[in-house]
Amino acid sequence: MKTAMKRKYFREYLASRRVLINEAIADMLRDAAASTRIVAAMRYSLMAGGKRLRPILCLAATEAVGGRADHAVKAACAIEMIHTYSLIHDDLPAMDNDVLRRGKPTCHVAFDEATAILAGDALVTLAFEILSAPDNADQGDVSKWMTVVNAIASAAGYRGMIEGQMRDMAAEKDRLLDLDALEAMHTLKTGALIEASVTVGAILGDGLPDHIQHLNIYAKNIGLAFQVTDDLLNVEGDPDIMGKEAGTDHARKKSTYPTILGIEASRSFAVKLVNNALQALDIFDNKADPLRDLAHYVIARKR
Amino acid sequence: MKTAMKRKYFREYLASRRVLINEAIADMLRDAAASTRIVAAMRYSLMAGGKRLRPILCLAATEAVGGRADHAVKAACAIEMIHTYSLIHDDLPAMDNDVLRRGKPTCHVAFDEATAILAGDALVTLAFEILSAPDNADQGDVSKWMTVVNAIASAAGYRGMIEGQMRDMAAEKDRLLDLDALEAMHTLKTGALIEASVTVGAILGDGLPDHIQHLNIYAKNIGLAFQVTDDLLNVEGDPDIMGKEAGTDHARKKSTYPTILGIEASRSFAVKLVNNALQALDIFDNKADPLRDLAHYVIARKR
Repeated sequence: MKTAMKRKYFREYLASRRVLINEAIADMLRDAAASTRIVAAMRYSLMAGGKRLRPILCLAATEAVGGRADHAVKAACAIEMIHTYSLIHDDLPAMDNDVLRRGKPTCHVAFDEATAILAGDALVTLAFEILSAPDNADQGDVSKWMTVVNAIASAAGYRGMIEGQMRDMAAEKDRLLDLDALEAMHTLKTGALIEASVTVGAILGDGLPDHIQHLNIYAKNIGLAFQVTDDLLNVEGDPDIMGKEAGTDHARKKSTYPTILGIEASRSFAVKLVNNALQALDIFDNKADPLRDLAHYVIARKR
Repeated sequence: MKTAMKRKYFREYLASRRVLINEAIADMLRDAAASTRIVAAMRYSLMAGGKRLRPILCLAATEAVGGRADHAVKAACAIEMIHTYSLIHDDLPAMDNDVLRRGKPTCHVAFDEATAILAGDALVTLAFEILSAPDNADQGDVSKWMTVVNAIASAAGYRGMIEGQMRDMAAEKDRLLDLDALEAMHTLKTGALIEASVTVGAILGDGLPDHIQHLNIYAKNIGLAFQVTDDLLNVEGDPDIMGKEAGTDHARKKSTYPTILGIEASRSFAVKLVNNALQALDIFDNKADPLRDLAHYVIARKR
C-alpha cells in the first residue's frame, strides 16, 4: 500500500474505533441516575476529548490475535475509565495541582474538590462493575473475564499505577531521578495500564500464550516511548495543540528524558523503543497493522 | 441457652471471626512491596481498630446458609478494604475534614493528603484484585465470584455509596433533610455496602434465592438501625469509648434521627428495625444465631 493510502486507512481506523468507544461510554452513563452531579462530573472528564489510546490499543490487540473488536469494547471502556479516574486524582490540589487538562478546566476546577475525588472513585468502581456484568459471559467464558478483572486491578493498584504516582510525587519533592529510577517510575505509572490494555484485548480475543507474550513486549516498549514523547512535547510542543501549557516540567525541575539524556538522544531512544515494539509484532500477520500504526503514532503525535 | 452463656458465646464468635479477618488482611499486605509508603498508609488505616462489622456479617451470612466461613474470608476482607477506603476519602479535608477516627489521627493527618487519596485508591483496587484472584475458583465456580465482584462494585459505586456521600455533603451545605431523604441517603451511603456484605456471604455459601432475599431484608434493617444508633451515639456516646468526639453532628447542624424524631423515638425506631431484621431470619435455623446476635449488637454497641 502507498504511504498516503496507509495513513488514510489508519486515520479512518482511529476514527471508527473512537466512535465505537465513545458511543459505548455514553451508553454506560445513560441511565436513571444520569441527572446527578456525580454523573455530570464523571461524564465531564470521560468526554473531555481524550485520545482513547488505551482502549484503542485494547481493541487493536483483540483484532491482532483474530478476535472481534466489539467483544472487547466493554473492557476497553473500563480501561479508559480507570485511566480517567487516575487523571482526575492526579490533577487534585493535593497532588499535581493542575487546573487545565486537554484545554479544559480539570474536574476539581469545573466542579469542586470533593466531587472530583468522588468522580474518580465512581469511575474506578464503575469500571469493575462493567467488567463483571452478568451478560459478559455471553462473549466467551467467565474465567476469561475474571482474568481481565485481575489484570486491570493489578495494573491500577499499589504495585502498579498508584506506586508510580507515589514515586513521581516523591521525585518532585525530594530529588532528581537517574535513568533507571525514571524508567521504573514510568513503567509503573503509565506502563502498567498500557500493558494491561494490550493483554486484556489479547485475552478477550483468545490469543495464544506466545502471542500474548509478544504483545506484552510490544506494550512495554510503546508505553515507554509514549512517556519519552510526552517529555519531549513538554519541551517542544505547541500549547494550543496540546491543550495544556508547555515547559511545566522544567519549571517544576522534574526529572525527564530530555533533562537526563538531552533532546536528540531522547528522540533516538523513542525511535529505538518503537522499533523494538514493531519487532515484537513480527510473528503477526496484517491483522496487527493497526498496532504497527499505533506504535508510529505514539511518537509522531503532537498532543 | 442462658443469656450469660449466649453472650459469652457471641463474644467468642466475634473475637474468633475478627482474628480470621485480621490475619487474612495482614497476609494480603505481607509481600515484597510492603516497605513502601503507600502500603504503610493502607496498613495504618486497615489496622486502626475497626469493628469489622461488614466482614463479620459476610462470614455470618455464609454460615447462616450452611457455607464455610473460610470460603468467604477473602470476600470479607475485600469488603473491609472498600469500607476503609471510603472512610479515608470521607475524612479528607475536601470532604468531612475529620482529624480523628477510632481515637487515632486520620490517614491524611498521619501521612499526608496525597498519600491518603492514593491509599484509598489502592485499597479499592486491591479489593477487586483479591476478588478476582485466579485461585478463588478453587472455592466454588468462577461465575459466583463474578457475581460477587459485580455486587460489591455496584454497592460501592455511583448508584450506591458514592451517591450517598454526595447527598450527605450536599445536605450539610445546603439544607436540612426530611425523614425520607435522610433514610435514602443512609441507604446509599452505608446501607448498600452492608447489604452487599450479607448478599456476598450468602452467594459464596451457596444460599438459595429465597434465603438470599430474606437476608437482604435483614441487612436493610440492620443497616439503617446501625445508622440510627450512630446518630444516637453522636448525641449521647462516650468520646473515650468511641475514639472520636461526640456532639459533632449538632455542631455541624446535620440532619440526624435524633434531630428529626427526638431521642426516644429514635431509640424505638432502632428497636423496631432490629425486630424487622430478626423476623426476616425466622426461616433460618440456629446457624443464623450469629446474625441474630449481630442485630442486637448493632444497637447495643457503645462505639
